Amino acid sequence: MAGPNLALVGATGAVGTVMVDIINSRENIWGEIRLIASARSAGKQIEIHGEMVTVVELSEEAFKGIDIALFDVPDEVSEHWGPIAAAQGVVVVDNSAAFRMNPEVPLVVPEVNPEMAKSRPLGIIANPNCTTLTMMAALGALHRKWQLTELVVASYQAVSGAGAAGIDQLTAETSAVAQNPEAGLTSDSVSKTLSSQGLEQSDSLWPVPIALNVIPLAGSVKEGGHSSEELKVRNESRKILGIKDLKVSATCVRVPVQVSHSLAVHATFASDIAVADARAELEKQPTVVMMDDPQNNVFPTPAFVAGQDPTFVGRLRQSLDFPNTLELFVVGDNLRKGAALNTYEIAELVAAELA
Amino acid sequence: MAGPNLALVGATGAVGTVMVDIINSRENIWGEIRLIASARSAGKQIEIHGEMVTVVELSEEAFKGIDIALFDVPDEVSEHWGPIAAAQGVVVVDNSAAFRMNPEVPLVVPEVNPEMAKSRPLGIIANPNCTTLTMMAALGALHRKWQLTELVVASYQAVSGAGAAGIDQLTAETSAVAQNPEAGLTSDSVSKTLSSQGLEQSDSLWPVPIALNVIPLAGSVKEGGHSSEELKVRNESRKILGIKDLKVSATCVRVPVQVSHSLAVHATFASDIAVADARAELEKQPTVVMMDDPQNNVFPTPAFVAGQDPTFVGRLRQSLDFPNTLELFVVGDNLRKGAALNTYEIAELVAAELA
Repeated sequence: MAGPNLALVGATGAVGTVMVDIINSRENIWGEIRLIASARSAGKQIEIHGEMVTVVELSEEAFKGIDIALFDVPDEVSEHWGPIAAAQGVVVVDNSAAFRMNPEVPLVVPEVNPEMAKSRPLGIIANPNCTTLTMMAALGALHRKWQLTELVVASYQAVSGAGAAGIDQLTAETSAVAQNPEAGLTSDSVSKTLSSQGLEQSDSLWPVPIALNVIPLAGSVKEGGHSSEELKVRNESRKILGIKDLKVSATCVRVPVQVSHSLAVHATFASDIAVADARAELEKQPTVVMMDDPQNNVFPTPAFVAGQDPTFVGRLRQSLDFPNTLELFVVGDNLRKGAALNTYEIAELVAAELA
Repeated sequence: MAGPNLALVGATGAVGTVMVDIINSRENIWGEIRLIASARSAGKQIEIHGEMVTVVELSEEAFKGIDIALFDVPDEVSEHWGPIAAAQGVVVVDNSAAFRMNPEVPLVVPEVNPEMAKSRPLGIIANPNCTTLTMMAALGALHRKWQLTELVVASYQAVSGAGAAGIDQLTAETSAVAQNPEAGLTSDSVSKTLSSQGLEQSDSLWPVPIALNVIPLAGSVKEGGHSSEELKVRNESRKILGIKDLKVSATCVRVPVQVSHSLAVHATFASDIAVADARAELEKQPTVVMMDDPQNNVFPTPAFVAGQDPTFVGRLRQSLDFPNTLELFVVGDNLRKGAALNTYEIAELVAAELA
């Protein structure tokens, strides 16, 4: 029997390209695999499981016969086209922020709350934000045993979280500052160096240089001065873990790293949690890898994790002064588990259910 | 009347060089200013307030007639020579970790606990670690009004915290990765790029690349898996603020930034603290600068702060879920306020007392 028919909407974008890699690296459980993109990209040929597939233009007809559609497109495109696809009976798995906090849309991490994927009154399942996703597999496992109550998180986010343009900007700036070793040593010398290389700040995604710098703002500024990214970490963590009153404080910071988000996590639980027990529990998780032997320089870093599927955890330790509290450093590839991979894993869940 | 005689021990090192700049940029309140260094650097000429001064070799005699000596040398040099100078009646202001946690040695931040400098039974005053110092002026001011009870801190530390060799390593790596724009995009490609440029990891201060990466370990690994840097943040914050039971959790991370440490701070107080009141209090502090209008892209970044004296505070906001708690992002030049400047300010305090 042929498997369900899969569509990938946004097949030629930054995350869509990673999704094609993931589709090709996993078992082919699908009937047809259809690639959909904007008119600009329609007609392109992309290899899927050894066969060239022609990208078709996004339209109502494009979803005909499709069972599950993965959306890797901007919020406003998902908002418009997600319901159109769902109205045709397609199960939409959406990687934008458009539906994540909608109470009728489940927000799913397969390791944490797979059962939620079954209840989708709008025919839409949302994929979480990449920063939240980075820590969910590890925290979900600990929460199941010890009940998470509080989270204080500081992020070290890769520029690719802002799309391919983020990588281009960091690459251009790195090249510029490499030509002036004094850059970054004194106030605003990075800006001056960039400017002397023809890179104007006004053309950048960011208001200040990101090379040899860190930028303590990701997303837009919301009420109370919190960033949209910080609110996503709070609200999505609560929804995924199913803890309505989880206390969350997040500070989201962009760092000059190309791929992989890192998080310094201070996690408090309802009951006493020993480091050895937490480590044993994390080691049991199929999608979590412990890299935790700092004496021997074993800890996860974003350059190491980039391109890999699991969540990597290191620096696990008992907080000295806060009861029932662990400190850990979590790193995940923001383009894979943080985006395309988790979306694909949700589709696999739905496929198993439809089978 | 001539002012007290000042000696600078370690005049030719990374922090010593910044100290010479600071001495030259401040009012000359001193009688003699003597420059002391190892035998290797003795004989060098350095300009102090318009006159060339010859560096003399570190010895017992070098302290003759000196009233105050600033030590910017490794721990073991301070440990040996600090007491020798103090035995001659010299007030030693030491920037190493050798004496910081000694109960008979005050640990001083002039904006926070200047009165402690007067009680120095060993004749030694210690200057705090640069990471702790980055946040003390701001937190000290808030603590005076609202009583700090808990701190959760994640750091974004510049490579110059590891000395001039740290800057050299980042500069060399940045130059290497700039020649290969794919570096950092996949697992361990940064290492491969460095290796292809003749930069071997074994020659680095760090076990993995720091360019296009972050390293979640600063200092050595101590009991419970905490790093020496994380323990310093905890123990020194408690001592400076005079809060014996302050709850502190720190995660110290190195980032590819040349100068200035940044800290994401989650600070809880004994009483309700409104953001507007906290902002007004911080704005009153002569050594704190608020850069906090994120809607208009105003927030502190290390590249901006490098070379400047004050502590810069931005992203000040009320925690959504934690009572009496503020979030703030604090940035300070780790070579200036984080090291040389604070040491010099302690010397000014002592000079005023001796006058």
